[in-house]
Amino acid sequence: MQNAYFPSLIPMSFLAREAAHVEGFAPELAVVTSGGGKELEEPLAVRPTSETVVNHMFAQWIKSRRDLPLMLNQWCNVVRWEMRTRPFVRTTEFLWQEGHTAHASAGEATRTAVDFVELYARFAREVAAIPVIAGRKSRAESFAGADTTFTIEAMMGDGRALQAGTSHDLGSNFAKAFGTRFAGGEDGTADESGLSFVHQSSWGVSTRMVGGVIMAHGDDGGARLPPALAPVQVIIIPIFKKGADSEAVVGAANALAAACASIGVRAKVDAEADKTPGWKYAHWEVKGVPLRAEVGPRDVEAGRCAVSRRDLPRGEGRVEGGLPLDPAAFASGAADLLDQVQASLLAQATAFRDSRIRDVSSYEELKAAVGEGFWARGSWAGSDADEAKVKEETGATLRCFPFEQQGSGACFMTGKEGGEVAVFAKSY
Amino acid sequence: MQNAYFPSLIPMSFLAREAAHVEGFAPELAVVTSGGGKELEEPLAVRPTSETVVNHMFAQWIKSRRDLPLMLNQWCNVVRWEMRTRPFVRTTEFLWQEGHTAHASAGEATRTAVDFVELYARFAREVAAIPVIAGRKSRAESFAGADTTFTIEAMMGDGRALQAGTSHDLGSNFAKAFGTRFAGGEDGTADESGLSFVHQSSWGVSTRMVGGVIMAHGDDGGARLPPALAPVQVIIIPIFKKGADSEAVVGAANALAAACASIGVRAKVDAEADKTPGWKYAHWEVKGVPLRAEVGPRDVEAGRCAVSRRDLPRGEGRVEGGLPLDPAAFASGAADLLDQVQASLLAQATAFRDSRIRDVSSYEELKAAVGEGFWARGSWAGSDADEAKVKEETGATLRCFPFEQQGSGACFMTGKEGGEVAVFAKSY
Repeated sequence: MQNAYFPSLIPMSFLAREAAHVEGFAPELAVVTSGGGKELEEPLAVRPTSETVVNHMFAQWIKSRRDLPLMLNQWCNVVRWEMRTRPFVRTTEFLWQEGHTAHASAGEATRTAVDFVELYARFAREVAAIPVIAGRKSRAESFAGADTTFTIEAMMGDGRALQAGTSHDLGSNFAKAFGTRFAGGEDGTADESGLSFVHQSSWGVSTRMVGGVIMAHGDDGGARLPPALAPVQVIIIPIFKKGADSEAVVGAANALAAACASIGVRAKVDAEADKTPGWKYAHWEVKGVPLRAEVGPRDVEAGRCAVSRRDLPRGEGRVEGGLPLDPAAFASGAADLLDQVQASLLAQATAFRDSRIRDVSSYEELKAAVGEGFWARGSWAGSDADEAKVKEETGATLRCFPFEQQGSGACFMTGKEGGEVAVFAKSY
Repeated sequence: MQNAYFPSLIPMSFLAREAAHVEGFAPELAVVTSGGGKELEEPLAVRPTSETVVNHMFAQWIKSRRDLPLMLNQWCNVVRWEMRTRPFVRTTEFLWQEGHTAHASAGEATRTAVDFVELYARFAREVAAIPVIAGRKSRAESFAGADTTFTIEAMMGDGRALQAGTSHDLGSNFAKAFGTRFAGGEDGTADESGLSFVHQSSWGVSTRMVGGVIMAHGDDGGARLPPALAPVQVIIIPIFKKGADSEAVVGAANALAAACASIGVRAKVDAEADKTPGWKYAHWEVKGVPLRAEVGPRDVEAGRCAVSRRDLPRGEGRVEGGLPLDPAAFASGAADLLDQVQASLLAQATAFRDSRIRDVSSYEELKAAVGEGFWARGSWAGSDADEAKVKEETGATLRCFPFEQQGSGACFMTGKEGGEVAVFAKSY
């Protein structure tokens, strides 16, 4: 895997080559029609995603089996014109990484798409403390141009679902549109020229994840950031009256922060003189800093300071006994507490998620569950039209067929046998 | 200093607010006129640079002196419509970092602009091994909207100058256009409302630097990368006949690479079976890898391997005695050699630069120097029209007034006293 960069302005004719792709993205495009003061002969789309321009280059770079697999990743901005925006979660422009791969076999492309959505799921759980459900999208909800789309679905604090990352098994759809072929394919896949189409995957996670973290963990006091992601993990607030005491107290606070830095804990001292401690508590609480330490003159004498955890309800966050003011002991104690906060946020989010998913065995039960703000989980073998009906009548969409299938059976909607367990929810 | 991100699509009316800015950038804009399938009421420019949208936000964020200085940096892509492009050096789209700052005093903004161009000069010298000349741009060559532009000018292998990074003292030009004001300014700077305009700087280095590195150091054999920048610092090529010997030789090569990695040296083994050693030498030479090690069966027996430096002319690059095959000794020997290569590339570029700058004391001398591919350095007190005349008649532009002023005196063009030493050169 290597990082790469492709142009952000894509000729409209590139997009038009893959029929499903252009149909899906055309309504969301920002289009450049003039450059350098002149009308362009061919308008350029600001990239909404890069499969087309990537394939334009892959078709030139890939000649033989030896050039495969080709795996590139791009960190960039993309633009999708949105009628209704919502900070971080639905914005006309967003930042993401988009991976693009080409393989000699269909199986390898599919496996790569699954590997990356599972990587995203692990990132969500282990770093963002969000217990996402990974699975396959329905045909109707798949990426325009993909054979299959995989997704991680996250439950927000209001019970809505957020699609927090996706990967796509693109098959040879873009390869056929752009002529991305190679010599030396397996028997039977080569055309008359002796060349075979590559099989591809693409996958991305965006700044939407920032919104996911805020909405999955936040409470009425503001954000609650998982320590693994928090830019400031420990905010240290020296408490002093102007002039008096300030030197000893600020000195002690700085020593704590330095000891934290030396073991990789991101601590910051807020020693601003013209804000009260109460103002600072509220300020850093809103920002979701996982731990707060308060260091006053008496604490310096006593050799211990008060510490509060952001992950527990207000009034319950005090750590009994606080932490020692010995810098090394403070730092290692803070590191332990941060591990606890990380685990606690994941546990809270998991308990909340599990309490808000209801198994349903009829459409009536689905309607009731969705109406009460639950995710509905049940066996599904419905048609695209059935799926559209659920959306229309309940506002819930088929979020995914989870990879972990439990107790599937007859479709709750149609009664057909051989359904797959699906999750429905209202979403952002 | 914090990293931030601003929208890439900027309303045309923002650009129009600062008269010099829009005049300079209008001919280079890519313009979005339709979004989501509809004609836009107001066209949007794909950002050519972000002073306008930054000030749109700064005007909302900055209220009082306590909000200053505000220093943000953005890593992003920008688009400037170019008629004639050249890989890395002049491209319609490029990647860069752009810093934007706001200060309470004019002196602080100027100092910040100078500090950053000096940081760029240090980066160029110490990392890219390019002995740039830092200085002030002439009025004609300054950024559209700046009071003063500072630059680092690099000499390429063909003697042309490349502007490799710039910083701008923006004064209050954008602050006045966008109303970026604060309470608590120094006496006399506040207007009737009690508010003062901020003073600003902006500064950027782009992917053009990649072109600079290639063109400053490259030779007929390809790139020569300074070790501090090279993605692969040491390429290790095991030499074996198919089947025979390969295990011992590849094993020894891998052990060298692992030992390098453990002390932070970026080494890579090229053990591909179906390319010859000669093909690999040429391949990695073109890519500019600073050091090459060759490990054959006899080397494994002898306990030493041959090593070649990319910075010396072909045929002179062999390191006498090579390096020991003991992994730790190899790695530390390679690290020492990489330091030598880094210093040698800077020394070569410095000697070349100094051999290609000629002091001139008349316009005739300038014309002769430029005609022979030299940079011309001399005292200058000419007008904008004089400067334009030099450009028109010789193709050389005033690259900068170097910060290091040596022996200024009467202007070589006009005879006026009080000139400043200026450097003229043909450029990219």
